Amino acid sequence: MQVTPKIKVVRRLRWADPTLSWGFVPTMGYLHAGHLSLVERARADNDRVAVSIYVNPTQFAPTEDLSTYPRNMERDLALLREVGVDLVFTPDNDVMYPPGFQTSVSVNDVSQPLEGASRPTHFAGVTVVVAKLFNIMQPTRAYFGQKDAQQVIVLQRMVRDLNFNLDLVVCPTGREPDGLAMSSRNVHLSPEQRSAATVLSRCLREAVVMLHAGERDGNALRALMRDTIVAEPLATIDYVSVADPETLQEVEQVTDRALLSLAVFFGRIRLIDNMLWLTPTN
Amino acid sequence: MQVTPKIKVVRRLRWADPTLSWGFVPTMGYLHAGHLSLVERARADNDRVAVSIYVNPTQFAPTEDLSTYPRNMERDLALLREVGVDLVFTPDNDVMYPPGFQTSVSVNDVSQPLEGASRPTHFAGVTVVVAKLFNIMQPTRAYFGQKDAQQVIVLQRMVRDLNFNLDLVVCPTGREPDGLAMSSRNVHLSPEQRSAATVLSRCLREAVVMLHAGERDGNALRALMRDTIVAEPLATIDYVSVADPETLQEVEQVTDRALLSLAVFFGRIRLIDNMLWLTPTN
Repeated sequence: MQVTPKIKVVRRLRWADPTLSWGFVPTMGYLHAGHLSLVERARADNDRVAVSIYVNPTQFAPTEDLSTYPRNMERDLALLREVGVDLVFTPDNDVMYPPGFQTSVSVNDVSQPLEGASRPTHFAGVTVVVAKLFNIMQPTRAYFGQKDAQQVIVLQRMVRDLNFNLDLVVCPTGREPDGLAMSSRNVHLSPEQRSAATVLSRCLREAVVMLHAGERDGNALRALMRDTIVAEPLATIDYVSVADPETLQEVEQVTDRALLSLAVFFGRIRLIDNMLWLTPTN
Repeated sequence: MQVTPKIKVVRRLRWADPTLSWGFVPTMGYLHAGHLSLVERARADNDRVAVSIYVNPTQFAPTEDLSTYPRNMERDLALLREVGVDLVFTPDNDVMYPPGFQTSVSVNDVSQPLEGASRPTHFAGVTVVVAKLFNIMQPTRAYFGQKDAQQVIVLQRMVRDLNFNLDLVVCPTGREPDGLAMSSRNVHLSPEQRSAATVLSRCLREAVVMLHAGERDGNALRALMRDTIVAEPLATIDYVSVADPETLQEVEQVTDRALLSLAVFFGRIRLIDNMLWLTPTN
């Protein structure tokens, strides 16, 4: 496994044999089983696998948790070595955003609601860094988790609109045995918060059950999710959404598909989760 | 020579043999000797050469000359066949900007002055279409003319900031025997305007002579250029600039380098030209 902070080294390894396919998993490190399942999928689909570890400052607002975002490079590299990765790219900020940097990449409409409404500069940071990483790595396939549902939608739009020559592969959300979506931020939860945080997946599952039972009213579904979270004293709702999975606009009446998603604070820790509901095909 | 409007076909040809180098010349068609010199340079530097012909609507403001921009695909293809091109990409608008398109790419600072001040939406259109063309073509080297000096500076910044894996090669401005910079728009000039338009290169050469003679005062150089153009009754100045070639900020005192540039109207036809002045090395 080669580990390098240098773009030149990445390019040399990537293009040493241009006939090989490369899978790429961009991460912010502090890897959990969710990340590792992306790596395993990349491993299965491609000749070679590259992972990047970079806590991208431009996707954090000044008020957010950039400085406290958990980091453990040594442990991350050990985990990746175990799964079997060929190349790990670990750039510094001055490699990614050197003096004079002034280019922006934005996906305008689907970046606005939900996470975009709560974190107005977040997706511009995500799109610029992912565009850079795609150009540095030039993978055949890139792997992202459904956990960050809106991120996936924004990036799918970017890949299509800017004609990146790669397949964006979306993998299921990794979950703890009690249903909590895996997140590097979970490490910051107190034992009480950790236990309360199961309310996210629980309320999503309840909404899915209601959809299966025939409930189609967006307001009723949002109210159901909201009520479940409000009943949990340690949880504070940021948003609860039942949206069209392509436009991310809130729906009045669910037709054949819906993205159920939410963001909830536990103290200062903000967690997100989602489930994509599709009409069961007969 | 393969001619195709389809991205899939471009990719298939581009990657048929991934060990070959590709030169790429993006154009808006109506080719002149300036374009062809870029193609010849690409031909000399690479195993294969691709050209795109696409009048990109997003780099024209609603008030500008998109509808009257000269076009002649048949002649263009004949010229390219003669010079020896392997692949010509001729996309339609619905291939480049399909329904739902919503991604923007901007280079924020160097897009503002000069052409950017006169044409505020121009460079955002240029950067998004060139980013797309780079991702569609994935060339080893891309060729642009010094004629569009600010475009070159904006695109160099974009390539660097977004880590496009290619060399951007800048080629000298093609000129008619009387000094007029070659431009597809020259075809719209009346005989009187065509003759008057030599004032652009003439006033640039005069300023270069003054620089060689030791004049370093930005205002004096701008006044000199301005006076020469004002003396030509058919010419109306849009801007006259003596700027730092990296930041494009107007300079008070020229040190070791300066970009002399201007935009001048002849009736409704707007022409640009520039010369890059570097301290002669001994």
